[in-house]
Amino acid sequence: MNEREKILRLLAYRTVLQRFRSMGFIRVFSDNIAEVLDISSSLVRKDFSAFGISGTQKGGYHIEDILARIQGIIGFSEPQRVIIVGAGRIGQALMHYSGFRSSGIEIVAGFDIDSARQNPAAEIPVLPMELLEDFIREQKVRIAVLAVPESSALACFDRLVRAGIRGVLNFTPHKLKGDAGTAVSNINIEHELTNLIYLVNQQWQVPSERHTIIS
Amino acid sequence: MNEREKILRLLAYRTVLQRFRSMGFIRVFSDNIAEVLDISSSLVRKDFSAFGISGTQKGGYHIEDILARIQGIIGFSEPQRVIIVGAGRIGQALMHYSGFRSSGIEIVAGFDIDSARQNPAAEIPVLPMELLEDFIREQKVRIAVLAVPESSALACFDRLVRAGIRGVLNFTPHKLKGDAGTAVSNINIEHELTNLIYLVNQQWQVPSERHTIIS
Repeated sequence: MNEREKILRLLAYRTVLQRFRSMGFIRVFSDNIAEVLDISSSLVRKDFSAFGISGTQKGGYHIEDILARIQGIIGFSEPQRVIIVGAGRIGQALMHYSGFRSSGIEIVAGFDIDSARQNPAAEIPVLPMELLEDFIREQKVRIAVLAVPESSALACFDRLVRAGIRGVLNFTPHKLKGDAGTAVSNINIEHELTNLIYLVNQQWQVPSERHTIIS
Repeated sequence: MNEREKILRLLAYRTVLQRFRSMGFIRVFSDNIAEVLDISSSLVRKDFSAFGISGTQKGGYHIEDILARIQGIIGFSEPQRVIIVGAGRIGQALMHYSGFRSSGIEIVAGFDIDSARQNPAAEIPVLPMELLEDFIREQKVRIAVLAVPESSALACFDRLVRAGIRGVLNFTPHKLKGDAGTAVSNINIEHELTNLIYLVNQQWQVPSERHTIIS
C-alpha cells in the first residue's frame, strides 16, 4: 500500500467524518466508516492506528479527535498557493472550482499561450506563458495543475520543474513521470471513461458473470 | 491487482504504442514501454501474456499486433453514447472535451436543473433534469458523467441507476459506491490536489528523507 493511497484514504475519512458530525454524531465505529467508503473496517482501524489515532474504551472513535488528528497530519497552517497552466475549458473550470478554497487551496494564477484567454486584471489573473518562470520563482509556488493540450504537456512539465514546481496534477492525456524531487498525479479522464465503458459492456455481454466493481 | 487497474494500464499501453508508432517504430521491447510508463517491464510482459499478446522470436513485440489486440479487448465497434449530468463549469468542460471523440466516446446530451444553462438546440443539447429518465430509457444510454454540486450527488446517482445507467464517472466530492450492477469511478480533484500538497510539504520539511513518489 503506497503513501498516496493512504493519504487519499485519510482525506476520504475526513469527508465522511465531517458528514457524520453534521448529522449530530459524536462517536463512530470503524464499521460505520468502512460501510460508507466501501472498504473493510480492519483497514480503517489499521490506518487509524498507523496514524496514532486510538479508539475509546467503549469502542468506537470520537469524531472530533480523529478530525483533529487528520488535520494535524494533512492540514495546512496557511493557504497553499497553486497555479494552473492552460486556461482552456478544463483549466478555467478548475480555476473556479469551489471545493478548493474550503480545503485551504488558493489558485493564484492561470497561464495560457493564447492572448485571447489572458486576463491579468481578473480576480484570478490569466497571464502569458512568458511570465511563468518568473512568477513561480517570485511567488515561491510549488504546486501546479497542468491542463494544456497533450502536445505541449511534456514541454510545459519540464518548464515547471525547472522553475521550482514540486507537485503537478496532470489533466493532460500524456502520462507524466514524477521523480525523487517531483510528485505527479495523473488524471486521464478519457481513460477513466473508456475503462467504465469497457466494464459495463463486459457485464452486459456476460450477464451471468456480473461482479462487484471496486472503484 | 484488480480489473480496473489492468484495463487502465492497457489504455496507457495503447497511448504509448501509438506514440512509438508515430515516431516510426515497428517493434518495441517491454523495457521501452516500462520506462515510459514508470512501471516494471515484468509487469508489462505479464499483462501482455494475460491478454494473449505474445512477443516475437527475436524478442520484442510488433506494435501493430499489440495495438490490434488491445483494440480487440477494449475497442468499441460503435460510438459509445454518454450523458453528462450537471452543466456547470466542469460539466461544460467535459461536454466539449476533445479527447473523447477520438476514443469512440460521444457525449449525446447534458442535463442541468438551471434553466439558464439549458439549451436544447445546441450541438450537444443541455436539457432540463425532468427529461433525464425518459432520455436514458429512450436512448438506451448506460454511461453517465456526474458533475453536479456535492449536495445533489447521491440523489442524482440514484436517479441515474434507477433509469438504467450502469457506469458513472463521478466528479463530485461525494464518494459513490458501485455495486454488482453499477460500475463507479470516483475522481476527487480536491483530494488529489491536497494529497500532492501534502507530499510536497513533507518532502520540503524533511529533505533528507526524499523518496520517489509513485503516481
